[in-house]
Amino acid sequence: MDKTSLIGSVLMFACCGAVFWMATQGNLLALWSDKGAIMVVGGTIAVLLMALPAEKLKNAGGFIKSYFFHKGSSPVAIIKQMNELSEKARREGILSLEGDVARLNDPFLAAGLKMAIDGVSPESIESTLRMEVMAMQERHKSGKKFFDLIKVYGPGIALTATLIGQIGMFSALGGSIEVMGKMLAVAVIATMYGTVLANCIAGPIGDKLALRSAEEILTREMVLQGILSIQAGDNPRVTMDRMMAFVPIAQRAQFAKAA
Amino acid sequence: MDKTSLIGSVLMFACCGAVFWMATQGNLLALWSDKGAIMVVGGTIAVLLMALPAEKLKNAGGFIKSYFFHKGSSPVAIIKQMNELSEKARREGILSLEGDVARLNDPFLAAGLKMAIDGVSPESIESTLRMEVMAMQERHKSGKKFFDLIKVYGPGIALTATLIGQIGMFSALGGSIEVMGKMLAVAVIATMYGTVLANCIAGPIGDKLALRSAEEILTREMVLQGILSIQAGDNPRVTMDRMMAFVPIAQRAQFAKAA
Amino acid sequence: MDKTSLIGSVLMFACCGAVFWMATQGNLLALWSDKGAIMVVGGTIAVLLMALPAEKLKNAGGFIKSYFFHKGSSPVAIIKQMNELSEKARREGILSLEGDVARLNDPFLAAGLKMAIDGVSPESIESTLRMEVMAMQERHKSGKKFFDLIKVYGPGIALTATLIGQIGMFSALGGSIEVMGKMLAVAVIATMYGTVLANCIAGPIGDKLALRSAEEILTREMVLQGILSIQAGDNPRVTMDRMMAFVPIAQRAQFAKAA
Amino acid sequence: MDKTSLIGSVLMFACCGAVFWMATQGNLLALWSDKGAIMVVGGTIAVLLMALPAEKLKNAGGFIKSYFFHKGSSPVAIIKQMNELSEKARREGILSLEGDVARLNDPFLAAGLKMAIDGVSPESIESTLRMEVMAMQERHKSGKKFFDLIKVYGPGIALTATLIGQIGMFSALGGSIEVMGKMLAVAVIATMYGTVLANCIAGPIGDKLALRSAEEILTREMVLQGILSIQAGDNPRVTMDRMMAFVPIAQRAQFAKAA
Amino acid sequence: MDKTSLIGSVLMFACCGAVFWMATQGNLLALWSDKGAIMVVGGTIAVLLMALPAEKLKNAGGFIKSYFFHKGSSPVAIIKQMNELSEKARREGILSLEGDVARLNDPFLAAGLKMAIDGVSPESIESTLRMEVMAMQERHKSGKKFFDLIKVYGPGIALTATLIGQIGMFSALGGSIEVMGKMLAVAVIATMYGTVLANCIAGPIGDKLALRSAEEILTREMVLQGILSIQAGDNPRVTMDRMMAFVPIAQRAQFAKAA
Repeated sequence: MDKTSLIGSVLMFACCGAVFWMATQGNLLALWSDKGAIMVVGGTIAVLLMALPAEKLKNAGGFIKSYFFHKGSSPVAIIKQMNELSEKARREGILSLEGDVARLNDPFLAAGLKMAIDGVSPESIESTLRMEVMAMQERHKSGKKFFDLIKVYGPGIALTATLIGQIGMFSALGGSIEVMGKMLAVAVIATMYGTVLANCIAGPIGDKLALRSAEEILTREMVLQGILSIQAGDNPRVTMDRMMAFVPIAQRAQFAKAA
Repeated sequence: MDKTSLIGSVLMFACCGAVFWMATQGNLLALWSDKGAIMVVGGTIAVLLMALPAEKLKNAGGFIKSYFFHKGSSPVAIIKQMNELSEKARREGILSLEGDVARLNDPFLAAGLKMAIDGVSPESIESTLRMEVMAMQERHKSGKKFFDLIKVYGPGIALTATLIGQIGMFSALGGSIEVMGKMLAVAVIATMYGTVLANCIAGPIGDKLALRSAEEILTREMVLQGILSIQAGDNPRVTMDRMMAFVPIAQRAQFAKAA
Repeated sequence: MDKTSLIGSVLMFACCGAVFWMATQGNLLALWSDKGAIMVVGGTIAVLLMALPAEKLKNAGGFIKSYFFHKGSSPVAIIKQMNELSEKARREGILSLEGDVARLNDPFLAAGLKMAIDGVSPESIESTLRMEVMAMQERHKSGKKFFDLIKVYGPGIALTATLIGQIGMFSALGGSIEVMGKMLAVAVIATMYGTVLANCIAGPIGDKLALRSAEEILTREMVLQGILSIQAGDNPRVTMDRMMAFVPIAQRAQFAKAA
Repeated sequence: MDKTSLIGSVLMFACCGAVFWMATQGNLLALWSDKGAIMVVGGTIAVLLMALPAEKLKNAGGFIKSYFFHKGSSPVAIIKQMNELSEKARREGILSLEGDVARLNDPFLAAGLKMAIDGVSPESIESTLRMEVMAMQERHKSGKKFFDLIKVYGPGIALTATLIGQIGMFSALGGSIEVMGKMLAVAVIATMYGTVLANCIAGPIGDKLALRSAEEILTREMVLQGILSIQAGDNPRVTMDRMMAFVPIAQRAQFAKAA
Repeated sequence: MDKTSLIGSVLMFACCGAVFWMATQGNLLALWSDKGAIMVVGGTIAVLLMALPAEKLKNAGGFIKSYFFHKGSSPVAIIKQMNELSEKARREGILSLEGDVARLNDPFLAAGLKMAIDGVSPESIESTLRMEVMAMQERHKSGKKFFDLIKVYGPGIALTATLIGQIGMFSALGGSIEVMGKMLAVAVIATMYGTVLANCIAGPIGDKLALRSAEEILTREMVLQGILSIQAGDNPRVTMDRMMAFVPIAQRAQFAKAA
């Protein structure tokens, strides 16, 4: 569970809700526009279908789940786990890790370790795992793209709905001013839907997915170095050092303690 | 047939249609503006003629066709096909593939295989096929550029039409308010045409063409590795492994089954 | 003569003209604003003077001429010409090309061939011609920059004129509504000048110059390979192959026929 | 203390204050909008929580402190300090620096020097310190991102509040013009909050953090070269030369004097 | 003196002046807004203080001076000068250039030549001069950044002033229409200040500084090659050829004549 994602989303919901409530004196229906909703919700879904290849769309649910429930592989936990594996391999031989592989919940580490146990050459392990990192990066990019499309096209489509509303309103110019005001209010609602969609929902989510992607790539590079070091039969101390090379000095003490 | 392209386009059409209908109480003609249509449609075509070299324009029909009917070379099907070719070459010699080349419907694979059968050197096959991939990338970029030009200039040109309408309307300020409202409504219609063109049509299409391009380049790299492996007389198992290097671990089982 | 440039420009002119005519019922003077013209035309020229170094400004006429009358070196014609030169060099020796150099209307090819005849080392020919390609690229970038400056600053400067008009108009608020309308109309005209300048003229021209630049660089690379091959005394067939490496398979048959 | 940051901030505060005062004839409460404040302040905090991973958020206080109180490592002071260390190492051996390490207030220099004294290999020192520089760059990027998010989403969120206000106002169209004016004024206040946040606060702060980052990386590269040179037992003069290589000629005289 | 900078600036001033005069019937005070001036001028200065490190701000005067009075090192003059130095070095030995160094008004050439005379190794000369070129590039970037900050934040800050003015005006809605018009006019003046600042002043100046920077880097590379060639004791003809490698063929005849 990513706590800041959750707290941020709740706070955003609360702020929007409070302002909506205050602006309409509790009559939230005044902010409803069926035309706006059809155009912004329907149109944005249509854009996603039009712009994303099918296999990327299928992952959409995963992106949203990842946003809220992404546990992230804590570097401290990884260092700790790698240290245990490294010491066991040193004591009882690398083949003794076979049982551990099944219990690992990080498929990247499991796949790499399995190859190491099977005696696959280091070059081959490295290239296979790098390929995995690249594939992960691609998946992350798809997730970012998903929310970027909403951020970019949401307001544009909302504007279309507003313009259509304004056309109707201008056509009626000269009629009752109250009716015209209502029409204009409804027209503007669609623009507001687009602004909320882009700035309060899709934009920040996409940014977090992108920032996390960079972190995860670093973590995986650390794991990759650890696996190669275990396979080489390095002293656990050397394995730690190779992995620590990716950790800033200030955090090393804390990491060393954990390991 | 790219189903998501089709469904997305139909949904987009339905959403726009529904909102147009609701906003005009079924009188869709209220959203017609001859000045807007001339300016947005004619002007956008003019921009494409002005901005694109002739040979790129000729491919425009192909881009739209590709958007809807692009079959895409499914990586699973390719692995399967390459596996068959690879086994036949192993059993009966590479010359036995001569008959298959004519039946292949992927010109890239056919050209590469033909060179392999003709005994062209691996370096030469590789550089020729890489050149092909680059040329394909250039064609894709042209397609993307085509829709990007519409996306960028469409709204700008539409704005011109709206400004002209507003100039006329402001000049008549002080006359009948009903007449002025009608003029303003007509002026705004052109802006709406530009917004629809950019956000509901050209933008998402260009995005899909760009996303697909990256996928196709990867697929072709896989085919290239397969061809070189077949020519080298590798065991079909080795050929598979070389191609699998481009497939994330999670999908390998599924691919291996297909092969 | 670049036909699409010409047709596009004429169509753009026709569309704008038609809409101008329809909007003003033939009274085109209603779209004239002396303040707008001074600000947009004078200001844009001033921006070009302020932003471009003198030697780049001198080439401005050339950019516009190039846009309309650029013949472009057709790859087919080049392959044909290189083939003839290559065969003559093979038959009568490279010195026999001395007479042909003077007749060539491509200064790039002529300079390269002259160096080859003079026995300049291949490395030196290659670096000199690469330098030429880079210099050409720089010239193209200057042309693109010229139109980009118009595209970027034109609307900004036009907006200034409109704002000044609006200031005058708001100052007179409360006077005759007809007079105010006229003032507002005139103010908006400047914005329209900027929009037309950016979207209907400078933008598409700059895009075409940029797209052409990439094509021409590829063509020159082809010529460079051809010259080096001729100097090396290669078989004309080999020369063709080296040049063909820059041509996609689909077009090679057509090129081979021409050669 | 970064004086220009402080003076700039005070001047910005004074300008905004003066204009606020003049525009409201001293009645600053007229620029207060509870809806605007909730939306812009609360919404921006929500965006930061939604978009930034937890560990980057924790550093937020540090970014603001760094903006005002960043002392910056003056290159002159560094050259002077390195020169003293270098001479002492030359005279009394590198082990004699052990006592100095504890007194150094630059953790980067201290860590590097400690490794040098401990006899860590130069390659290892270099890679560890480069890793530190990269980690610092990452921290700086996080700081920049923090303010960029405010700059990008602040105005968007403010616009949402304004749109909501306008919807309320348009709904009341036809009522008392005074009441409507007040509603519109309040709606616009939110937009103003967003503009101030982006242009007068977050934007310039982010720009300074980015510009400083580049400077600091250069300084650290200088220190790194100095440490390696001291460890190699170079003549202090040679150590100076290696560090001076990162200083433009015009400033070398001044630096040499300081050293 | 950069003539196009001067002519462009004068023309820009004349266009703005003419339109200001026409729009206000000579009553230029109608375009004065104390709030706008405080906010735009004061706020922009504040942004520069907030965003630029102190040492970059100190060079601001130099940037403006450079814009108008930049003489530019004409490549022809440089080739001529290098040719003379090269011939003298060939005739009388490189030590004979010692007296010339003091008379050179290009500090880059002087510093390089001095090192060559002092017998500094070519590698060291090259790395020192490259460092100088990078430092120059950094200075140029600072100049560009200075004007870019004005271009980016000027309009944003101006908008703030306008919004404040509008808030006051909307609050007074329902009062005298003449008074409201005057308030709105004053509010819009600030926007106009920002537009002029960005589009007519800071934008084009920044563009020219950037374009010049690229030119100057090329020139310095030419000088660097010349110095190394002189030190190597090359024939003046060879020195020329090495420098000419940076000059397009079309200009070489003209350069050779000058030399």
